[in-house]
Amino acid sequence: MNHPTPYREHLQRLIPPALVDALRSRFDGRFSTAQAVRDHHGRDESPFPPCPPQAVVYAHSTDDVVDVVNLCREHRYPVIAYGAGSSLEGHLLAIQGGVTVDLSQMNRVLTINAEDLTVTVQPGVLRKQLNDELKSSGLFFPIDPGADASLGGMCATRASGTNAVRYGTMRENVLGLTVVTAEGKVIRTARRAKKSSAGYDLTRLFIGSEGTLGIITEIDVKLYPLPEAMSAAVVSFPSLSDAVQTVIETIQLGVPVARSEFLCEATIRAINAHSKTELREAPTLFFEFHGTEASVREQAELVQNLAHEHGGENFEWATRPEDRNRLWTARHNAYFACLQARPGCRAVVTDTCVPISRLAESITAARDILDTGDFPSMLVGHVGDGNFHALLLIDPDNEAEIAEAERLNDQIVQLALSMDGTCTGEHGIGLHKMAYLVDEVGDDAIELMRRIKQAFDPDNLLNPGKVFRI
Amino acid sequence: MNHPTPYREHLQRLIPPALVDALRSRFDGRFSTAQAVRDHHGRDESPFPPCPPQAVVYAHSTDDVVDVVNLCREHRYPVIAYGAGSSLEGHLLAIQGGVTVDLSQMNRVLTINAEDLTVTVQPGVLRKQLNDELKSSGLFFPIDPGADASLGGMCATRASGTNAVRYGTMRENVLGLTVVTAEGKVIRTARRAKKSSAGYDLTRLFIGSEGTLGIITEIDVKLYPLPEAMSAAVVSFPSLSDAVQTVIETIQLGVPVARSEFLCEATIRAINAHSKTELREAPTLFFEFHGTEASVREQAELVQNLAHEHGGENFEWATRPEDRNRLWTARHNAYFACLQARPGCRAVVTDTCVPISRLAESITAARDILDTGDFPSMLVGHVGDGNFHALLLIDPDNEAEIAEAERLNDQIVQLALSMDGTCTGEHGIGLHKMAYLVDEVGDDAIELMRRIKQAFDPDNLLNPGKVFRI
Repeated sequence: MNHPTPYREHLQRLIPPALVDALRSRFDGRFSTAQAVRDHHGRDESPFPPCPPQAVVYAHSTDDVVDVVNLCREHRYPVIAYGAGSSLEGHLLAIQGGVTVDLSQMNRVLTINAEDLTVTVQPGVLRKQLNDELKSSGLFFPIDPGADASLGGMCATRASGTNAVRYGTMRENVLGLTVVTAEGKVIRTARRAKKSSAGYDLTRLFIGSEGTLGIITEIDVKLYPLPEAMSAAVVSFPSLSDAVQTVIETIQLGVPVARSEFLCEATIRAINAHSKTELREAPTLFFEFHGTEASVREQAELVQNLAHEHGGENFEWATRPEDRNRLWTARHNAYFACLQARPGCRAVVTDTCVPISRLAESITAARDILDTGDFPSMLVGHVGDGNFHALLLIDPDNEAEIAEAERLNDQIVQLALSMDGTCTGEHGIGLHKMAYLVDEVGDDAIELMRRIKQAFDPDNLLNPGKVFRI
Repeated sequence: MNHPTPYREHLQRLIPPALVDALRSRFDGRFSTAQAVRDHHGRDESPFPPCPPQAVVYAHSTDDVVDVVNLCREHRYPVIAYGAGSSLEGHLLAIQGGVTVDLSQMNRVLTINAEDLTVTVQPGVLRKQLNDELKSSGLFFPIDPGADASLGGMCATRASGTNAVRYGTMRENVLGLTVVTAEGKVIRTARRAKKSSAGYDLTRLFIGSEGTLGIITEIDVKLYPLPEAMSAAVVSFPSLSDAVQTVIETIQLGVPVARSEFLCEATIRAINAHSKTELREAPTLFFEFHGTEASVREQAELVQNLAHEHGGENFEWATRPEDRNRLWTARHNAYFACLQARPGCRAVVTDTCVPISRLAESITAARDILDTGDFPSMLVGHVGDGNFHALLLIDPDNEAEIAEAERLNDQIVQLALSMDGTCTGEHGIGLHKMAYLVDEVGDDAIELMRRIKQAFDPDNLLNPGKVFRI
């Protein structure tokens, strides 16, 4: 089954002149229709061609967002929320036209409740910024999607990343949200209590809704005490399946690893070239352990034993903060390192996630599928969660490569679905996976999602054309 | 502000005779209108007077549930899902009439995926049964609401309990659900992957929906490897606030306690009488630690030091399984032990949960509020989560006591809300807290919940009159 992609879908509706006037009069210097500004907001990290909005408003407050939404609704015109622009799935593209409300200037850390292990932030706060501002508190925010994404965007895509194996995803780490609804109402979805059985879980409904149900303007997230000890390790393996099998057994044993990342040989080569590292070019695992000194030592020993049983070699430790940072910076730059392996390319990135027992089979089969392609491809993964990414480096001007990448992508996704897995572990549906979402949950579940969308946004003005077609 | 309670709300609609005929013809011996059967399904552990359904069907399969829902919908007649009958909030009461679909015979553990750390169960599986059936797998299911509740009911109320401080609640531990919708469609909300960003989070929407959005017929939950070592401890304190402060500091330090339960002096007295234990009659904490031998020792030492700083005495250890079981059985029977402290009484049970820094203040104030009442009351709590229960032991035939209990309950809830807490940490809204839900989330959030209800169940046939009024 080959799914059509919406690469060429440009159903841009022009902005009504009266709406331009109203927004300009309300927002003055924070409203723009300049082409450069529009272009900046019409691209992300996906391989889709840019598709700029008709205008951009820089919001500074929840009230600003309310006014944008109300003015757009009066003119029946779409509104698209924008955070850091790091989406991989075309979430931000204004495929039906629209006004982009840029939340990047709503970037204040509002309240650090250190004694409650919570923090309230505006949606434009970036994850690195948040951890910088938390430094003196002895606490940290673990969710780490690699890119320096905004917290609002991370909520909207239900993001996770390298620490999720231990600390969970945005789904588990958000306590409550302030949201502007399609009707311009401001709601708070929940209190700051750690758990609650009070009514329908609106928090979790907005998390992962990709800007289609409301615009998030404040976020309460959980924090964690900085572990007493942290230690990272790199180990290389004779084969991909040896590496993956080591992680599977680590998880099945219940070792509370904080991070367990897989990188294929080609990824390591790209990282060495990009980050000037000298990692052994072989299938590799990056681990991190958090806990007390004794517990970190114990976890590390257990994992080292498992790795040795699978031929793991060159166990290298990074216990000093600067060494750990170098390692994880290299991991986080893997995406850009891979892009540089083929100048001018764009990456089609898969994001399947399967039950852990099927992971080795899933990755090995993905490698075989990718090897039939005529372009370079790499594998990296948050393997402790059963989640991995294939990066297919295509020439964006080459129709044949685009089609070929979609064909391989389709095979990898169908394989994951056949293993009771998901088409997207953390990147979201966006424009790219709408057909896969139908394959994954079925028409009747999609119908319920559609009804929620219609109930929340009857005019279909919030980021229209994403997640599913109305 | 005093909220009216629906104690006297009996708007029973009679069952259409044609529906009786259709259900009897379809279900034969598994359909009943016998008064004793109806009475059994019209009561729970709440203090509300019984309110039986008009008929009961014992379902054996998802198809059975589909047929009940379809037949009831054809006759525009309510359907109420029933698991173990352990609700504390009147969830099961047929206040508008209805057919109860009893799921207790759908009690098979369908598939243990030990290598994935997941299990798929039918909704009538009881939590103790599940752990019994898991024994040979080396895995366990941690969520533990005290009562031997059904997994379906635990999903419906977003239950948690003593282990939630370490392992989370049903919100964090359900991977996916099979649900029969109001239109008789069967959907599966998600795959068995540990994480997913695929579309709106229908799983979390059904969890906590209290039977009002669909009927859950299969559940995929996470399992955990049995810890290498487990150890429990009891410690008593000079005062309530010393005990609670010890827990607050334990959480703030990031000690991964598996359980941390508070019991007031009166609760200990009731337990001693009921369970023939000889616990010191003082404010008390029960702890449990899970991990490797070394990690359990380390956690226990840390907590012991904190306890000593707050005057904790008589630290008693239970490392043998039978001693630990005796301790937790006594804890789980606390509810029934308290009921026996006043023969013939029913308990009004509060369930507030606040950010951890406000917990000591919240419990101390609750104690002061309760001391103004003319009936016995106890405090127990999952204090590591900021969640505690006051048990108000009232004579159910004494109108003055009922009114007084509601007045005190109201004060405790309003106090929690003023501390950014919730009116219910784990018991749900049911009949009792509909007005508090409005106070907690506000009219505009309630409006969104109402729209979801209308979108999923346009005829308002699934457990009508619960969570909020339509």
